Amino acid sequence: MGLKNDLSTETGWEIAKNNFEEDQLITTGSNFMIGNGYLGYRGTLAEWGADEYVGCIVTDTYDMADGKWRELCNAPNGLFTKLVVEGEEMSVFDSKVLNYQQKIDLKNAVYNRETTWQAESGVTVDLAVEKFASYDNLHLIAMDYKFSVDEKTEIKVVTGIDGEVWDLNGKHFKDYRLLEEDNLLAIETTTGEQEINVDVVEGLNILGAEDVEEKIEKKEEEIYRHLTFELEADSEVVLRKVAGIYSSNDVDNPLEAAKSDVEEGLEIGYSHLKENHINCWDELWSVSDIKIEGDLEAQTVLRFNLYHNIICTPAHSDELPIGARGLSCQAYQGAAFWDQEIFNMPMFLYTQPEIAKNILTYRYKNLDGARNKARQLGYYGAYYPWISGKSGEELCPDFFFENVLTGRKIRNHFNDWQIHVSPDIAYAVWHYYQATDDWEFIEDFGAEIVFEVAQFLVSHAYFKKDKNRYEIVKVVGPDEYHENVDNNAFTNYQAQYVLDKAVDIYNKLEETAPEKLSDLSERIDIDESDLEMWEEMAELMYLPEPDEDTLLIEQFEGYFDLEDVTPEEVEERLQDPHEYLGWPVGVATRTQVTKQADLLQLFCMQNRFSEEVMRANYDYYEPRCEHGSSLSPSAHSIIAGKIGYLDDAYDYFMESCTVDLYNRSKAIHGGTFIGGIHTAACGAAWKMIVQGFAGLELPETPEDNEVVSFTPGLPEKWEKVKFNFCYRYNEFEITMTEDEFIIKAAADNDEEAGFKVAGEKKAISSGEKAQFKVE
Amino acid sequence: MGLKNDLSTETGWEIAKNNFEEDQLITTGSNFMIGNGYLGYRGTLAEWGADEYVGCIVTDTYDMADGKWRELCNAPNGLFTKLVVEGEEMSVFDSKVLNYQQKIDLKNAVYNRETTWQAESGVTVDLAVEKFASYDNLHLIAMDYKFSVDEKTEIKVVTGIDGEVWDLNGKHFKDYRLLEEDNLLAIETTTGEQEINVDVVEGLNILGAEDVEEKIEKKEEEIYRHLTFELEADSEVVLRKVAGIYSSNDVDNPLEAAKSDVEEGLEIGYSHLKENHINCWDELWSVSDIKIEGDLEAQTVLRFNLYHNIICTPAHSDELPIGARGLSCQAYQGAAFWDQEIFNMPMFLYTQPEIAKNILTYRYKNLDGARNKARQLGYYGAYYPWISGKSGEELCPDFFFENVLTGRKIRNHFNDWQIHVSPDIAYAVWHYYQATDDWEFIEDFGAEIVFEVAQFLVSHAYFKKDKNRYEIVKVVGPDEYHENVDNNAFTNYQAQYVLDKAVDIYNKLEETAPEKLSDLSERIDIDESDLEMWEEMAELMYLPEPDEDTLLIEQFEGYFDLEDVTPEEVEERLQDPHEYLGWPVGVATRTQVTKQADLLQLFCMQNRFSEEVMRANYDYYEPRCEHGSSLSPSAHSIIAGKIGYLDDAYDYFMESCTVDLYNRSKAIHGGTFIGGIHTAACGAAWKMIVQGFAGLELPETPEDNEVVSFTPGLPEKWEKVKFNFCYRYNEFEITMTEDEFIIKAAADNDEEAGFKVAGEKKAISSGEKAQFKVE
Repeated sequence: MGLKNDLSTETGWEIAKNNFEEDQLITTGSNFMIGNGYLGYRGTLAEWGADEYVGCIVTDTYDMADGKWRELCNAPNGLFTKLVVEGEEMSVFDSKVLNYQQKIDLKNAVYNRETTWQAESGVTVDLAVEKFASYDNLHLIAMDYKFSVDEKTEIKVVTGIDGEVWDLNGKHFKDYRLLEEDNLLAIETTTGEQEINVDVVEGLNILGAEDVEEKIEKKEEEIYRHLTFELEADSEVVLRKVAGIYSSNDVDNPLEAAKSDVEEGLEIGYSHLKENHINCWDELWSVSDIKIEGDLEAQTVLRFNLYHNIICTPAHSDELPIGARGLSCQAYQGAAFWDQEIFNMPMFLYTQPEIAKNILTYRYKNLDGARNKARQLGYYGAYYPWISGKSGEELCPDFFFENVLTGRKIRNHFNDWQIHVSPDIAYAVWHYYQATDDWEFIEDFGAEIVFEVAQFLVSHAYFKKDKNRYEIVKVVGPDEYHENVDNNAFTNYQAQYVLDKAVDIYNKLEETAPEKLSDLSERIDIDESDLEMWEEMAELMYLPEPDEDTLLIEQFEGYFDLEDVTPEEVEERLQDPHEYLGWPVGVATRTQVTKQADLLQLFCMQNRFSEEVMRANYDYYEPRCEHGSSLSPSAHSIIAGKIGYLDDAYDYFMESCTVDLYNRSKAIHGGTFIGGIHTAACGAAWKMIVQGFAGLELPETPEDNEVVSFTPGLPEKWEKVKFNFCYRYNEFEITMTEDEFIIKAAADNDEEAGFKVAGEKKAISSGEKAQFKVE
Repeated sequence: MGLKNDLSTETGWEIAKNNFEEDQLITTGSNFMIGNGYLGYRGTLAEWGADEYVGCIVTDTYDMADGKWRELCNAPNGLFTKLVVEGEEMSVFDSKVLNYQQKIDLKNAVYNRETTWQAESGVTVDLAVEKFASYDNLHLIAMDYKFSVDEKTEIKVVTGIDGEVWDLNGKHFKDYRLLEEDNLLAIETTTGEQEINVDVVEGLNILGAEDVEEKIEKKEEEIYRHLTFELEADSEVVLRKVAGIYSSNDVDNPLEAAKSDVEEGLEIGYSHLKENHINCWDELWSVSDIKIEGDLEAQTVLRFNLYHNIICTPAHSDELPIGARGLSCQAYQGAAFWDQEIFNMPMFLYTQPEIAKNILTYRYKNLDGARNKARQLGYYGAYYPWISGKSGEELCPDFFFENVLTGRKIRNHFNDWQIHVSPDIAYAVWHYYQATDDWEFIEDFGAEIVFEVAQFLVSHAYFKKDKNRYEIVKVVGPDEYHENVDNNAFTNYQAQYVLDKAVDIYNKLEETAPEKLSDLSERIDIDESDLEMWEEMAELMYLPEPDEDTLLIEQFEGYFDLEDVTPEEVEERLQDPHEYLGWPVGVATRTQVTKQADLLQLFCMQNRFSEEVMRANYDYYEPRCEHGSSLSPSAHSIIAGKIGYLDDAYDYFMESCTVDLYNRSKAIHGGTFIGGIHTAACGAAWKMIVQGFAGLELPETPEDNEVVSFTPGLPEKWEKVKFNFCYRYNEFEITMTEDEFIIKAAADNDEEAGFKVAGEKKAISSGEKAQFKVE
């Protein structure tokens, strides 16, 4: 099971794996990946290929090969290198391995691999590989490949570009052009559907080898250098490879761009490239890092998640989504879910708000796709897709999972019934405004998103005349095991919230930017009557209230009538371990067992519920949750933290942070590959600290000038937690201990940006109030 | 396959079966049953028991034995008789059968069976049995059991009451009291759940046997006489048995009542009992029969259906439902569906309207059950059950079918989503009024049904503000393969129709019976504001219109987007022949293949659609219909008749009339027993003639004094069709030929009851107009 025992906790900055487990290839490759938001390069060995899930997933290369799934391309592997010792290909599968380690240095975003073999010839071979995906030049990956032997030996190295790639859903590249020019190798290739060029150029420097004989081998989809030489005992050879990757969606001439970057990279040299890369990461960590004192394991797993949240995010672009599995593989089509705004974005919003702005601008630029989706389904306004690629069109196919018992496809309704995505995105727009006071963004982008979502809600909701209320029926909430539900509390509350904000924004725009409002109104065809409709709907939206006696809020109408069994009992009913538990006939559907607890997610998003209500609902829903979603444990941690269940908060924190690291999740479910890094859980790590343990709550609108509130409570063994916090584009450093809560403003902050702080310490054993200090 | 070749067509009054087929036991027993609306006695052999599906199903004995299904009881078999010749039990399974016939004389509702055996002893045994379920005394069944041998032989007859009965869902009788008194045998028994006494008394006369030694045998659930004697060659012995059946729901002392009836029956004697019975049937047929000249097969199958529609109907009561399988077995719980009003009732409405009134009074008396069901599901008004027993509570369990591939129960939503049952019943109330002008019934019973259904519709429907229309979502229409559909055309049109009638009735009541209206309004808590609501809903109900180009009406929202394949292609996808095709994962659900064509059913019920629209929709929906419901072929016949497709009309007429007779249907589907007589198809036989081939249309309200319209069109080989027709409680005789349409009023008709007639002949080849004559 995963990495738990190998976790290197000495510095809090490293994860390592000291044994090779063949059945963990998918997970290990994801956990040890490097990346930079433009590309993700899996943590695989240099000598591996498609069978070992080697991947170099490139953003903005959406292509459909099987007529059903559109996904990102896996580029030809420019770092492919295999070592042949006296004719024996050194392999961790077939050769005798004496020593093995894989490692990520999270601080520098550098991957290391060491292997010692005893070759059949008797010679001992030491290999040490280091690689990184440059954060300085996003199109470059670089590798330092170093080896030595203990006896003079004949060596062959095969290194070049392997274009025979692992694909989840069909082959994307339809033709390959293999090039050899100026001592560089290149593969130019084109995708079958979208005709995107994806070009990879490789350059190599060799140090320490003499009399190297070089031959070029070209196969259909591969191009390699065969380097043959004699190696003296204890003499080290170093190959320094640089590969450049561009697609025709990046630049007009991707081959030239890649060549030029590689040439420049070779000229600068590996060490310098690495230094530039590390400098970028120093800067990233200077705002993103969270320090935990007293718990090295927690510190390490936390940073593992922050690292992955950074590398999965195309921060360089305001046109690209954050994939649900990031760039760790092709699963979930390299596309964004509501996870993007609700799980990935907060860390950026409070550390690098301009990236949060990019994320929301992406949604702005995808409005047409959302409008099309709405129209196709008989609505108007903007209905954001469940799976959002680049165009904003819905990428989720009608048939997502399959029934493994019958082999038949399942008509999941994620694409047409899971409407909460739209209000969630509008909610995030407001969240951005709350945290930044960036009204200009609202004027130029946010208002249009929020208004169009409000319009969509109008076109979707029904009015129940006899009850004088609006209802939202036939939806799927975050708990996807229950489809086709009515008045899902999460959805209704979120819809009401957004309608309310739409009204606020409209009214404020009338004051601040009447021309912009009138332009926008004309463009999206709204007027005062729509405003009135939003007002009415916000007022009359049915919001399931806590029961007077039990304080419970029903997740959706009829939930409490469902069979009340435990997740364990439900799982015992599986006839096949790969069965999908949800709609329409999965074993959870007719029970109260949830994939994730909708109400707890709602409590994470809205501050309107009392601690008593949150506690009653946590007590009820928590034991009924199967945590079939990686979004689930973090919500449990945050709410447990809010209600003073600090042990639960800690346990769920660790569970959420280790969903990938300790290999807790299924790679295939209901017949569909869903492996890879759970990026929502990565983003959630930051939320669990700041929203959960620190208990951050913002004022409802920035102009209220209300106090920002913290309600800190630390797990027992945590001595100190320290993180950066950006509010209204000004930086603060926050330090929490058992007794103190210190907020330190950066020297150059605007005077107005300072914020008042209120709050009290959570009910932990000591019961003492924290000291709130603003320095 | 079934009876087709054995059908006795000489008189048009007989069905017969001349061979014994063991695999047809369920169907044959149903087809050859006798009954009288109080009980149904299956067409089984006297020597048979539970294994051969012997049944004497008694109305008003609803009891639940398995905790899931409530069904009618199968009473102890008072006619059990077996013949033992020289120690050999004469059996159609194990003995040598020389001749075999079963027959129903439909005219007299008398069953005959003849068997000739060659016994192992070499003797030839001739047995002739006649039996009937008295229509004169509904609690009596009588049998004439006659046999002879061709050599002097030792005979034993075992005859008495067999209480070991066939049950579909668990054993109902918890204890048995065996009695022998005054030369009568009796079994008193009590059901386990409802503690209903079901008592059977048997009496016997023996003719032609001498020196009979009689012993009584009592087993736990059986009581028999053992009659032993010597029988001379060619000498005939006749046993004349009378059995009386009562339950404690009929009378306080069912045992005494049964005894007294049996004693009286024995005294009157078999021949006289039979004469009284036949007299009743003469009277029934004098109004119910439809004569077809020129097509003996059609004549016979038609009468077979009329016969079954009579014997399945508890005409004696206004508190009992017509079972979907009548009293032919326990399937569908002996309970009524919407079939009752829409398929069974019309024949009575136009021949014995007082029985139609009983049927609707049953619904009136079940209003509380419908109100409870509405409240339990969060509505108000009256939501009639999908399966309605005696109490009006919903008998349909949540899990109706099972997935035969996984063995898991299917959560069908017949009980909570199939709302059209309520408007259909209200529609039938109006239909009764249209045909009878019986406003008093509306005042006393009908108005309350219609108002409560209107209230239910108000509480169910949603208003779509942006479209300014009412919608009905998440329903199941008549086509049950597609559950969870929105704006099902059938349901919306029916709802609108009923809301409109509710307004008319309310307004008329204000004039004719203001006190009754005010009493009723107070009792069911309605006022003018509800009237306004009905008016508004009737006006703004969304009625899917025919497409301007294609004239097609979409069965429900999104139907045309479903996969367009043929029923044959869909059936090829079955992994198991017993798979349920519908919700939620059956092979038809994601396709346009229907169980029955909703639109055609709608056209049968409402006259608002033009011939062009009906034709366009027939052309589209007909090839997509799988006829998985026995309600389907008749609707196709009627609409085919209306649009001049007389060949189709004839073929579907024959298909509908022979669904049971030619054994066209499955006895078990989706793991549930659904065998027995399809009583809706039986009732539909009358509709197909009168509504279909004669083309009857009534004026919208009787006071309009508009003309009754006929649009006749006969299949080519039918020379003449003659039927009785009761309008405003006055009798008419109608004769149709190719050229003439003659309406003859009975001599004693009210002067006012006469009706004007309009119409024209259907577009058949000759193109000539029919002569309409009123004599």
